[in-house]
Amino acid sequence: MTDATADDGADGPVVVDLHSSCTTQDVATGERYRATVNGVVEYGVFVDLSENVSGLVHESTFDGDEDFDVGDETVVHLTEIRDNGDLSFELADPDDPETVDRAHDYERTAAASVGDRVGDTVHVEGEVVQIKQTAGPTIFRVRDETNAVPCTAFEDAGVRAHPDVEVGDFVHVNGEVEEREGTYQIEVGSLDVLDGDESADVARRLDAAFAEQAEPVDTEPLVEWPALEQMIPGLRDVARTLRRAVLEGRPIRMRHHADGDGMCASVPVQYALTQFIEDAHHDEDAARHLLKRLPSKAPYYEMEDATRDLNFALEDRARHGQKLPLLLMLDNGSTEEDTPAYKTLDHYDIPIVVVDHHHPDPEAVDPLVDEHVNPYLHGEDYRITTGMLCVELARMIYPGLTDELEHVPAVAGLSDRSKADAMTDYLDLARDAGYDEEFLQQISEALDYEAYMLRYDPGTQLINDVLNVNGDDERHRELVPFLAERADEDVAEQLDAAESHVEHERVANGANLYRIDVENHAHRFTYPAPGKTTGEIHDRKVEETGEPVITIGYGPDFAVLRSDGVRLDIPTMVEDLNDELPGAGVSGGGHLVVGSIRFVPGMREEVLDALIEKMAEAELDEELRSAPQR
Amino acid sequence: MTDATADDGADGPVVVDLHSSCTTQDVATGERYRATVNGVVEYGVFVDLSENVSGLVHESTFDGDEDFDVGDETVVHLTEIRDNGDLSFELADPDDPETVDRAHDYERTAAASVGDRVGDTVHVEGEVVQIKQTAGPTIFRVRDETNAVPCTAFEDAGVRAHPDVEVGDFVHVNGEVEEREGTYQIEVGSLDVLDGDESADVARRLDAAFAEQAEPVDTEPLVEWPALEQMIPGLRDVARTLRRAVLEGRPIRMRHHADGDGMCASVPVQYALTQFIEDAHHDEDAARHLLKRLPSKAPYYEMEDATRDLNFALEDRARHGQKLPLLLMLDNGSTEEDTPAYKTLDHYDIPIVVVDHHHPDPEAVDPLVDEHVNPYLHGEDYRITTGMLCVELARMIYPGLTDELEHVPAVAGLSDRSKADAMTDYLDLARDAGYDEEFLQQISEALDYEAYMLRYDPGTQLINDVLNVNGDDERHRELVPFLAERADEDVAEQLDAAESHVEHERVANGANLYRIDVENHAHRFTYPAPGKTTGEIHDRKVEETGEPVITIGYGPDFAVLRSDGVRLDIPTMVEDLNDELPGAGVSGGGHLVVGSIRFVPGMREEVLDALIEKMAEAELDEELRSAPQR
Amino acid sequence: MTDATADDGADGPVVVDLHSSCTTQDVATGERYRATVNGVVEYGVFVDLSENVSGLVHESTFDGDEDFDVGDETVVHLTEIRDNGDLSFELADPDDPETVDRAHDYERTAAASVGDRVGDTVHVEGEVVQIKQTAGPTIFRVRDETNAVPCTAFEDAGVRAHPDVEVGDFVHVNGEVEEREGTYQIEVGSLDVLDGDESADVARRLDAAFAEQAEPVDTEPLVEWPALEQMIPGLRDVARTLRRAVLEGRPIRMRHHADGDGMCASVPVQYALTQFIEDAHHDEDAARHLLKRLPSKAPYYEMEDATRDLNFALEDRARHGQKLPLLLMLDNGSTEEDTPAYKTLDHYDIPIVVVDHHHPDPEAVDPLVDEHVNPYLHGEDYRITTGMLCVELARMIYPGLTDELEHVPAVAGLSDRSKADAMTDYLDLARDAGYDEEFLQQISEALDYEAYMLRYDPGTQLINDVLNVNGDDERHRELVPFLAERADEDVAEQLDAAESHVEHERVANGANLYRIDVENHAHRFTYPAPGKTTGEIHDRKVEETGEPVITIGYGPDFAVLRSDGVRLDIPTMVEDLNDELPGAGVSGGGHLVVGSIRFVPGMREEVLDALIEKMAEAELDEELRSAPQR
Repeated sequence: MTDATADDGADGPVVVDLHSSCTTQDVATGERYRATVNGVVEYGVFVDLSENVSGLVHESTFDGDEDFDVGDETVVHLTEIRDNGDLSFELADPDDPETVDRAHDYERTAAASVGDRVGDTVHVEGEVVQIKQTAGPTIFRVRDETNAVPCTAFEDAGVRAHPDVEVGDFVHVNGEVEEREGTYQIEVGSLDVLDGDESADVARRLDAAFAEQAEPVDTEPLVEWPALEQMIPGLRDVARTLRRAVLEGRPIRMRHHADGDGMCASVPVQYALTQFIEDAHHDEDAARHLLKRLPSKAPYYEMEDATRDLNFALEDRARHGQKLPLLLMLDNGSTEEDTPAYKTLDHYDIPIVVVDHHHPDPEAVDPLVDEHVNPYLHGEDYRITTGMLCVELARMIYPGLTDELEHVPAVAGLSDRSKADAMTDYLDLARDAGYDEEFLQQISEALDYEAYMLRYDPGTQLINDVLNVNGDDERHRELVPFLAERADEDVAEQLDAAESHVEHERVANGANLYRIDVENHAHRFTYPAPGKTTGEIHDRKVEETGEPVITIGYGPDFAVLRSDGVRLDIPTMVEDLNDELPGAGVSGGGHLVVGSIRFVPGMREEVLDALIEKMAEAELDEELRSAPQR
Repeated sequence: MTDATADDGADGPVVVDLHSSCTTQDVATGERYRATVNGVVEYGVFVDLSENVSGLVHESTFDGDEDFDVGDETVVHLTEIRDNGDLSFELADPDDPETVDRAHDYERTAAASVGDRVGDTVHVEGEVVQIKQTAGPTIFRVRDETNAVPCTAFEDAGVRAHPDVEVGDFVHVNGEVEEREGTYQIEVGSLDVLDGDESADVARRLDAAFAEQAEPVDTEPLVEWPALEQMIPGLRDVARTLRRAVLEGRPIRMRHHADGDGMCASVPVQYALTQFIEDAHHDEDAARHLLKRLPSKAPYYEMEDATRDLNFALEDRARHGQKLPLLLMLDNGSTEEDTPAYKTLDHYDIPIVVVDHHHPDPEAVDPLVDEHVNPYLHGEDYRITTGMLCVELARMIYPGLTDELEHVPAVAGLSDRSKADAMTDYLDLARDAGYDEEFLQQISEALDYEAYMLRYDPGTQLINDVLNVNGDDERHRELVPFLAERADEDVAEQLDAAESHVEHERVANGANLYRIDVENHAHRFTYPAPGKTTGEIHDRKVEETGEPVITIGYGPDFAVLRSDGVRLDIPTMVEDLNDELPGAGVSGGGHLVVGSIRFVPGMREEVLDALIEKMAEAELDEELRSAPQR
Repeated sequence: MTDATADDGADGPVVVDLHSSCTTQDVATGERYRATVNGVVEYGVFVDLSENVSGLVHESTFDGDEDFDVGDETVVHLTEIRDNGDLSFELADPDDPETVDRAHDYERTAAASVGDRVGDTVHVEGEVVQIKQTAGPTIFRVRDETNAVPCTAFEDAGVRAHPDVEVGDFVHVNGEVEEREGTYQIEVGSLDVLDGDESADVARRLDAAFAEQAEPVDTEPLVEWPALEQMIPGLRDVARTLRRAVLEGRPIRMRHHADGDGMCASVPVQYALTQFIEDAHHDEDAARHLLKRLPSKAPYYEMEDATRDLNFALEDRARHGQKLPLLLMLDNGSTEEDTPAYKTLDHYDIPIVVVDHHHPDPEAVDPLVDEHVNPYLHGEDYRITTGMLCVELARMIYPGLTDELEHVPAVAGLSDRSKADAMTDYLDLARDAGYDEEFLQQISEALDYEAYMLRYDPGTQLINDVLNVNGDDERHRELVPFLAERADEDVAEQLDAAESHVEHERVANGANLYRIDVENHAHRFTYPAPGKTTGEIHDRKVEETGEPVITIGYGPDFAVLRSDGVRLDIPTMVEDLNDELPGAGVSGGGHLVVGSIRFVPGMREEVLDALIEKMAEAELDEELRSAPQR
């Protein structure tokens, strides 16, 4: 080191601000650098230029009045790189105007290939998808376009390292790859939040990669059916959104109607997503964190359920650093009654996707959801069941599932008594797969029975066996007839109690009207529940009479309605009842031939009387007669 | 290596197929072996003969047209074992007809002694009892006749190693013993499913060892009592089955009646099994995974409970790779009403063991269960309570518990008002252990009170203190009188409300009949529940009148029945009511002097009227009078 | 070694008993020591003098007839310390009378600084605060006056090391400091329970340190208010007790009334304690183990809740080796109805702290609780809400929270309709913090709504956002109006149904009496619940009439009472009703203008008639009129 050299360098026009990942390969004698004091000793100060570049400013080069503290920022001039690699600096004028950034010219390693680089120091760029504080280090899960890799940073035991870094940031991680019990992680040397162009570059790269990887499987529908065909693009959008969520590490919370069609819809999608998650995250546990299937008892998304879902999501975020979830509504979610719950989630920017076949209210729902698939939006109706739609959806999410799902649309159709023409094709398809119609019907009954027994539990393993999706074929063949028979026996017992209390009258339009107090003349808190009990009575009466039938099963504050050959416009009836009977608090809804209403208990007689009056005037409609008994 | 040697060897008559555990000690120059290509290089191919035996086939020995890919199978001829251990091969004719298997002649290490072999490569043979996939390796828990040992195999991070291996397979594991935070594991080198004779050998060895280790403790009953004596062999069978389940790593799910006798039955068995599990598995956590005690509110095993139990078991199997459990029914489980639930479990081959003292239906139950102990099957009755039986059972499961359990049969007897002659002996036994009858009665009341407060929670620690089984003696002495007094106060408050609404009539047979609407004239959702409230009223009336008494406590859809000095054949009454009152949906059952029935709410008046008519004609029976008040 | 030396030494007057932590630095040739045989060999016996001091007694020095077994105790005489450190002993007379203890003169290391001593052997003295058995070692968590440190001791895999050591013991740990994934632990060499003076010394040291560290933050109340001022010392005692519990590693179980004021009380305290726990335990997970906030639906601490709390605590102790918790009752807990639950916990020496503003029964409660803060105990009343008190408490527990809590007392006051003069100051304070009164009112309604939706779940993250304590400000501003509007709509719907069924009469004292059957004329199982529905009707009637109003909302077994301008002495009414109506089982309580009672359903008409009769005679009181509508 000579004064001459130093003076020369100090005349240079710019000050270099080294990126924290820079090494000594990025510096040259004669240049000036921004530096931070990291130690004050008798003979000078030590300065850091980056995570890996440090050196001494000897006090002999001070002007005399400098007084440094650790953490002070200054500008230094590199005078010498010694043989042992040590750097010597002099002080330079800190007010020098022009600063240029210099990044270490590093080679990125793909997260998917860090396993080949154990022991090496690598550079990874990606998005932080999870931050988890352990009792020791902080773990940042960083995802690039190839995979996610855990990066461990240690500040102090249990203390959050890099507190400025947040989930969603795009970062550059530099550190050594370690193998720990068969998994790979990066021990963080430096971790920097990228900004500006660098951040945009990474975002673009991930976006492009995810867009490509999120692209659904190219499938043909299981049956040729124009009505369904027009909904395929919508289902492809849903498949893409769900695959993308998986790739981005966003949990999916699936809520579905707890009945046969709801299970035929949700179980295949759960299966497909589980497979896709395992492929994308190389971790059998990931599916448990990233996917939950939850049956809903109510025919809509209740505020209480939404509040609990939101609360769980927030707790998971606080505890595991996870993203907030995407909500997937299946065989549920299309109606105005769902919107208060949606609005709650909306305040937390939780994406919502709906596949349903109940009569939708797109004006209320669509502004709140990201995707909405429903046959009514295409001029079709509930005959295209959600199970039929979701089998197609599952096949778009993950390849190779066709053989395992061929019988499911037929079960869905039987469960919801679909009168779709395509039912013939679906039944043929199922028969070719080894399921005759009687057995499919038994599956449907077994699903209904188990939905009751499991209540709020998804019962994944058990339902997989009952539906034979990702289940055990032999067990399935044994279990289904057993459960169907149990269900039959319970129904028979319920009807034994109820039947002698069914009241009959012939109303003005000529239909037979049957009414039964299902709370007083059926067992409570047992299978079948009042709705199903009413349905079974109705079906028997339709068969017995061969004439138009209306059946009402009522309890203290509800009535279940079924009709055959009579056109009940239930939404309009509810509206009218509300006008006529102030203080009755009537609400509810349904299809043309099935529905349910609620009211306050003290007005039951008035409500039922008014309801029956309306039904007596309802139009008979041969189109709405059941198919003759097979 | 010379051509001559090679040619000589190549003429040999057989090809050896080395077992994957073979080492270089199992090969000799001149022999021919089946081999798999594991690398293709410029100068030849590398081949594997077993996990530990590999070598080079130099291309100079090729005929010229060979074209190998990794994974190809071929036959090689060992020409040289070099000084450094490297093996040199030549190609041999792959179509050679005769192949002989050669196993490495290894010495088995007992799983219990791997801790003495840290750092060594050992061979263990046993049954795979659990397979758990971690984010890193797959862990196979292998049990031989001495212990179970975790064996870790790594395929790729989070990827299932040896996907063909299943729980229940008999395997040979070869690998190095490691110590990790004080536990021992084997890092798998090779893991092979045994078949044929080898498998049968291991199975036999385990079976013999388990049979010996499962043998129950040799005990004498606590009291001399011929009625009980004849049930000892059955209890020994149950003890053997339970000990065997523990040894085999099969979880036990215990369901018991949530009352005093049910707790006196289940808590000692839980205690004994916990001790035995800790001994057998050397792991304080094992008892938590392998044993669950669950109170049942209903007097039988409900389908909903069975469905949830099955679902939990299937989830545990999916998640932790555990075996499906054994179901142990205590003070519950002997009746026809239990069979639908049993049939459900039967489809999953879940073993069922029953110890009960309620009136059994062996024809319905026995075909579905593995063991069934019930005093009625020996011409005895409910006076032998399940608690009395299970104290004997607990002592057979684990030695040295006698001193801690001597007071329990007396509590069980008082709880179920047993009129067994042996009660005197049991009370004496308890008194000698420091429990006078008044205090035993308080324990019984405290158990009943806590059963109510805990609902579906077993409350193990708390109940242990109340019953003083594996509890804290000092706390027990304080807690019991306090809880008994709380229970008394709550009963008094309930009776204050109810008493003035008890209706009295003297019926045809001369008995006093009391009826009370326990839903309308008692507090709801509070202790005591309707059944106990009815019982307390009944006891007071018996004492007040000194005459035959029948008491009926009814709600909207149920009635609780108690009698004293009147022979009520409740099952027959239920049958008759069902015949006479179609649509009333009557069900239920009980003993001669206690029972309960259910019906549909709308038929309550009819059912109660018909019931009272039958009771008025029931036979008086002095034998069924309560013992005079002590 | 010479015989001469040995003989000399053997004449010495005392035998030294080395403390287990002693090393060879603590011995000298010529001295005699108590020793334990740890090995018998052909040529002599090996003896232990301490954990670290051992040596050989050669059989050549035996008298001839000695016969030693491992574990025998004897006295030896140190004859030689060899160059390699080995010690040689001779036998000495074991019956020598005088023994002196000798402790290793070690230097204590503060638990907080073990991180600076990795690889060193250190001595730590402290209290065992947790003992956890793992599948490998046993982990003793030892806390000294600076910090807690995990100490791992290994006996055998899964076997409890040092089974004599219990939580609460004062111990001396000697072992090597290890770093494991960023946390420090001591690998136990020796672990001894201290007794006598040594134990007392450590206890004193910890006590002094905790007393100092537990000292609350010095704060000034947010507003000048003499009524509140006098309660500050009591709140400081509570703050001290809670801080001390945290320092001692005792979990805190917080139960609070599930309404607006209850949340305004509990959420700030939860926030402050969480911060303090993280500081004291350097572990983000600690707060999850050490603090639980649980809403209580009932207005008092139910036995069922207490039973479950106790059961959880006992399970946690059994499973995680934790101390039993401290119970903190907020906005709940001052009444006689709480005492049965308190007595249950008392049997387990669980400390109880109460901050409440409901009418207290200090005679019943105070003997059972450690601290009891309630405005009535200072001649004040419910106008000082628990939320107001607990904001002061939170500020005493953790510094720097003032800015985040300034709006909370105003929300608490609005929620409980406090008529305190200080409300003006609180509203001003909130307005200065950016919350106008309308928005505060909305927060109150949103809290009430979410309390209903969350039921038994604390919903911490969600409630933090709603109340904006440790929440997200932007989300808070969006969420509150949305939830308040939802609540309003649900109230409107409920009132629509109810309003036409409200019955009116003018009673003797001139007040307007309104009654409504809220079970029959309102929707069940939906927001608002009957109490709130009654309140809303009442508020409307007060506004409509401008006159004194009494409102009764009743169901099958309860009635909710509200009055305005009428002095209802509800406790006295309950007492009188009970006297007049035996068998009605009336219970309940309340303030002067709000209350609720329960009764058995069958006596409803009688109870309501008698109640109205009393109300008709109640005194009108202008002081109890609502403030004019703002």
